Amino acid sequence: MVATSESKYRVIGTRPIRHDGVEKVTGRALYGADIRMGDLALGAVLRSPHAHANIKSIDVSAAEAMPGVLGVITGKDMPIARSGSVDLLEEGNVSLKFASNRVMAGDKVVFKGHPVAAVAAMDLNSALEAARAIKVEYEVLPPVLSIRRAIGNDAPILHDDLVGDHLGESVNSTNIASHFRHELGDPEQGFADAKVVIEREFELASAHQGYIEPQTSTAFWAPDGKITVWTSTQGSFNAREQIAGVLNLPPSQIKVVPMEIGGGFGGKIPVYLEPSAAVLSRKIGRPVRLSMSRTDVFEATGPGAGAVIGMKIGVDANGKIVAAAGDLKYEAGAYPGSPVAAGAECCFSAYNIPNVRVDGYDIVVTKPKTAAYRAPGSPHVAFAVESVVDEICKEIGMEPFEFRLLNASKQGDRRAVGPIFGRIGTTEVLEAARDSDHYQAPLEQSSNPAIKRGRGIGIGFWRNAGRKSTVTLNVNRDSTVTLTEGSTDIGGTRASISMQAAEVLGIPAEKMKPTIVDTDLIGYTDATGGSRTTYATGHAAYNAATAVIEEMRLRAAQVWELEPDSVIHDENGFSSKFDPELNISFEDLAGRLEGTGGPVSITASVDITRAEGTFGVHIADIEIDTETGKSDIIRYTVAQDVGRAIHPAYVEGQLQGGAAQGIGWALNEEYFMDSDGGMVNSSFLDYRMPTSLDLPDIETILVEVENPLHPFGVKGVGEVTIAPPIGAISNAIHDALGIRLRNAPMKPSRILEGLGVISA
Amino acid sequence: MVATSESKYRVIGTRPIRHDGVEKVTGRALYGADIRMGDLALGAVLRSPHAHANIKSIDVSAAEAMPGVLGVITGKDMPIARSGSVDLLEEGNVSLKFASNRVMAGDKVVFKGHPVAAVAAMDLNSALEAARAIKVEYEVLPPVLSIRRAIGNDAPILHDDLVGDHLGESVNSTNIASHFRHELGDPEQGFADAKVVIEREFELASAHQGYIEPQTSTAFWAPDGKITVWTSTQGSFNAREQIAGVLNLPPSQIKVVPMEIGGGFGGKIPVYLEPSAAVLSRKIGRPVRLSMSRTDVFEATGPGAGAVIGMKIGVDANGKIVAAAGDLKYEAGAYPGSPVAAGAECCFSAYNIPNVRVDGYDIVVTKPKTAAYRAPGSPHVAFAVESVVDEICKEIGMEPFEFRLLNASKQGDRRAVGPIFGRIGTTEVLEAARDSDHYQAPLEQSSNPAIKRGRGIGIGFWRNAGRKSTVTLNVNRDSTVTLTEGSTDIGGTRASISMQAAEVLGIPAEKMKPTIVDTDLIGYTDATGGSRTTYATGHAAYNAATAVIEEMRLRAAQVWELEPDSVIHDENGFSSKFDPELNISFEDLAGRLEGTGGPVSITASVDITRAEGTFGVHIADIEIDTETGKSDIIRYTVAQDVGRAIHPAYVEGQLQGGAAQGIGWALNEEYFMDSDGGMVNSSFLDYRMPTSLDLPDIETILVEVENPLHPFGVKGVGEVTIAPPIGAISNAIHDALGIRLRNAPMKPSRILEGLGVISA
Repeated sequence: MVATSESKYRVIGTRPIRHDGVEKVTGRALYGADIRMGDLALGAVLRSPHAHANIKSIDVSAAEAMPGVLGVITGKDMPIARSGSVDLLEEGNVSLKFASNRVMAGDKVVFKGHPVAAVAAMDLNSALEAARAIKVEYEVLPPVLSIRRAIGNDAPILHDDLVGDHLGESVNSTNIASHFRHELGDPEQGFADAKVVIEREFELASAHQGYIEPQTSTAFWAPDGKITVWTSTQGSFNAREQIAGVLNLPPSQIKVVPMEIGGGFGGKIPVYLEPSAAVLSRKIGRPVRLSMSRTDVFEATGPGAGAVIGMKIGVDANGKIVAAAGDLKYEAGAYPGSPVAAGAECCFSAYNIPNVRVDGYDIVVTKPKTAAYRAPGSPHVAFAVESVVDEICKEIGMEPFEFRLLNASKQGDRRAVGPIFGRIGTTEVLEAARDSDHYQAPLEQSSNPAIKRGRGIGIGFWRNAGRKSTVTLNVNRDSTVTLTEGSTDIGGTRASISMQAAEVLGIPAEKMKPTIVDTDLIGYTDATGGSRTTYATGHAAYNAATAVIEEMRLRAAQVWELEPDSVIHDENGFSSKFDPELNISFEDLAGRLEGTGGPVSITASVDITRAEGTFGVHIADIEIDTETGKSDIIRYTVAQDVGRAIHPAYVEGQLQGGAAQGIGWALNEEYFMDSDGGMVNSSFLDYRMPTSLDLPDIETILVEVENPLHPFGVKGVGEVTIAPPIGAISNAIHDALGIRLRNAPMKPSRILEGLGVISA
Repeated sequence: MVATSESKYRVIGTRPIRHDGVEKVTGRALYGADIRMGDLALGAVLRSPHAHANIKSIDVSAAEAMPGVLGVITGKDMPIARSGSVDLLEEGNVSLKFASNRVMAGDKVVFKGHPVAAVAAMDLNSALEAARAIKVEYEVLPPVLSIRRAIGNDAPILHDDLVGDHLGESVNSTNIASHFRHELGDPEQGFADAKVVIEREFELASAHQGYIEPQTSTAFWAPDGKITVWTSTQGSFNAREQIAGVLNLPPSQIKVVPMEIGGGFGGKIPVYLEPSAAVLSRKIGRPVRLSMSRTDVFEATGPGAGAVIGMKIGVDANGKIVAAAGDLKYEAGAYPGSPVAAGAECCFSAYNIPNVRVDGYDIVVTKPKTAAYRAPGSPHVAFAVESVVDEICKEIGMEPFEFRLLNASKQGDRRAVGPIFGRIGTTEVLEAARDSDHYQAPLEQSSNPAIKRGRGIGIGFWRNAGRKSTVTLNVNRDSTVTLTEGSTDIGGTRASISMQAAEVLGIPAEKMKPTIVDTDLIGYTDATGGSRTTYATGHAAYNAATAVIEEMRLRAAQVWELEPDSVIHDENGFSSKFDPELNISFEDLAGRLEGTGGPVSITASVDITRAEGTFGVHIADIEIDTETGKSDIIRYTVAQDVGRAIHPAYVEGQLQGGAAQGIGWALNEEYFMDSDGGMVNSSFLDYRMPTSLDLPDIETILVEVENPLHPFGVKGVGEVTIAPPIGAISNAIHDALGIRLRNAPMKPSRILEGLGVISA
């Protein structure tokens, strides 16, 4: 359902068939693995069997001598490493070296699956066999598999050259890449004044985005130094910048051709195979394709971070939150860069709290470098905050929605971490969830006494982003309009951007012909991520379409031989101010441009520095078999502030998909590691993502609180939906069983432990 | 050599390595035949063995039943034919029906090689075998192989539904599609007043452009009706319009992806295989590729027209031309549309003549429909005019350059057919040729009395064109600039357009990254032809680059926190009007755009309705073996008004290439037909184009008479160079042997006939 009933728009808010639909369902759309050319070499990556080891030596001679092998590379072939590692680096900044070492190890490996060498061969089997023939001598070091181990006194140090920033102090020999603190008001005094203070610790395991398409990248390094990379990426320009950094080249020397993408969720922002494929290609003079297996994807691409969250909240006698403190420790994986900063921003955003302290820690461990995963950092803190809030509600006897509405952040409030809020919809979303069919319906218990049911709610926040986007529009004489954009279409970019242009132009969405192009064919466009694309690329499309209308108005004046000022444009098209007989639709005018001054072709770009965050409230009904610990979500509702839903079906799909991922993380998904640092569940058989059979139809409530920063009121909608499920489900488990689980995933064994059926 | 010695430009006039050079020389560039995909079907076209016949029946059943065959189409499957042939047609306009019938015959065939059916199969051999298994019953009609036959009283009529326009009268049952007349002054009185009048008749055979790459087109008709066509074409938008017309679809339903092109010279403006490939694809649900053999190319693509030219010129006692009359009969081939109108425009343009009459005839014959071939229509009239002028010079005893300079057209003169001349370089080019090393050097005779040498000159004209073009520029942070254009790169578009943008931007040509894109990615751009691309697309690039500079000026003001008006741009970059310390190059500023408002991305389009024509004067030295009739060009010079040479090496190449083609047409090339209408020399072995071994190094003189219509003075340079050779060589033969050959090619047999050694 859509909360606002009438639309002032003709295209926005409708549900046209997606422009790329037929290509996708007929299998014609070309993904990364569909690239082939006559002399394509296929490659294989040799990966470390150890989570932590020094590389003593690599002998590739046997591999190079094998039949069909065209070339072998190791870390020594990577430009940064080769040039002494720090030419490009500012003093103390080892990020480019880390970026290079992440894709191809230098002198040590820091996660199992870490690339150590790569082979290009005439065929895949030759490449795989040759990779196995490479002899690597390792000095195995103890792995660092948890935050507690990483920050313990005797922790093995991953990176000798990592200089930690600990509250502004430089610290050597540490696995804590950074420790920052945000403070607002006087948290100590706030807690002292509180009537009830609850403090708990939470833990959430790493989980993978689980995109269906494994990474595949093809690169060709031409003799003139131009590099073409075909890859599945969330951002072709972003990939270009990363590859340029690792290869020590100007970015324009690289053309990144974005193939269709089979899911990303943040995980296809980093590059993995691209630089190695390029370096192999330079070595052998042919294009090289490298592909990952599902195990490679699990072991060697970035999952969402795991975290340990300390959470303390105090309320006064009226239930007003007077103080809150978070202690956020996030796993960065093998190199610095967890989403802890975003976690800190999201942590207390749902509530207006006068006294806040947030400590954030970015901690390296010997696991794959984490990547963004849908609202990165936010599920962890929503789990902690919403669990403690639920406990407080129980403690003070306040209805959960009443408590949240009392404390809800509003427009103009100071965010605990971040700018002043603009037009946010915290209250509207809470009210919509509270008043929903789902929440108003009683939860009936099962007649089977071993089966317990419970209901929980949770709220989550994502900040959203703007940034750079470019759109070009060209008007065809048959009144269609081609649209060129650089934004990867993960969740419906072609439709959502085209619809915004169509709305301005006054033509049906079907008359738009969108294309996603490579980095040589459009202005810089940031990655599809941060829920920014419909917002920022849409704004660029709006600007371009507005400029097209202005140009067409001038053309209409030419056709009619009138002064430009006497022609106006409104929802019916173009007309003369003075002669009501003179009026023409956009579509008819498009057919009459001949002789009026050339093609109508407009490019517009934006760099949007402000975005409005958004909130989602989830209601989860769970059913638990107390004998086995197995749980089932039996009803689930997502209410979310979506700003303005451009294509409601896509928006609903985002809300449902993110909720499903959050449910999986809450109940089942985790990187299950053995004591040597190996992932023991690195297949879709063992890594238990919910399927459609595991979940009920997820109900959605689109709450449209328009964003005044955007001409149609758009807010990013794709990410926040993963944040609330873990807390909501933890609260539902408590409602069902009376136990609080603070270690997720809340899998059957943990439920049974909580019930005392088994011991931890 | 370049006539102007100093350049005011930094990029224009230099000779950078072409942007696509490495791709081309390493074989990476993708041409039409390089397209392949998993389920690509390969096709074969069944072609008529008769030059003229009614199709009584076609039986495809045996072909359809053959193993590997996926589908067969005939004319009945073509949309226009199927819909009763005239739905889209205005009354009396059969051009769309002709367009459809040309690519797939309807109820009759009108040239040998005319497509009658097409097959798609799993492999090429199955397709070829199946095509042979199609049974076609023909009622053979007499062919019409010459203009004289076509306009004779008892001529077989090619098209019952062709209504000729004869000086404004509609005429049925005719092979003369049109007869038009241009008159200026009083030609009868002019001839009456002349002291010397010479009237002659000339004939020039059809000749093929001889591009090295045969046509190959691949089409996929998706289930949603979207059609993608990969083809080698001079104009992707032009191809889109033609395909849309034949398929009775809106143009935007079709995406034409222009592949690299292996030569065109006008011959790759029409579509041939594209509509049939598309209709086959719709039938079988897979992409289909159709390719021509060299014989197919000769027999079934459009050569340059043959013509019969009546020419009459009268001069007064001072050698001033007082009257001229041309009777221009051009072969259209099987359907109307010869270049006779352009021939009429070019005919007398080199001279300022007060009294002129030109009659033009467009005549259908049972040979392949002619296509444009470099300055289409102009070689024929230059042959005639320059031969008669040479004869007049001999008759009145005037030096050929003196005569031409006396009569030369100048800026402000009324063209006999066409607008008032702008800044033309007739005089400058004539003087440059006259003063050249070549012309000033005496021609020495051979010591062998059987070998005779002669020298001739000729002048030719091409009108050039403007029309529509679009260019997009995007500034990268590493100070490179991507350029997107829709103009096929036949003769150096990437370089010549990029260099014009680079000149404005103040960066080296190598910092430009040009790409030629498909019809979904750029505004309408006319075909690369009419010598329009460097002129019109270059103008669009100039406009886009100028807008980029203006935007960058505003960005510099932002970076320096100055008022926009206080920042100026000059050849050194951007600077403050007031503070000499504040100055920054384009390249440095490109790296400092972060935070100034998004990517700098500009699209500009033009529709240029005026262009300036250009002249070339050629000097040919010929050596003839009077015993065998074999001739050799022993020295050859091209002087040409090139406006402003953007990339002189490319310009020289154009001058040399066109002269080589003109020399081939003058001496050897022709469609040699048997009496049934079959071409007997349809291979490169028998169709004798000059190779590099046949020709001397062709000397070039670039005369830069800047065109005030263009910001850099550009004029189209690619076409006129084919016009002068035939006349110049005819004059050289007369100089050598004292005989005038007025039937070209002037092959050995005709030389021997002229010498009376053999009889005609």
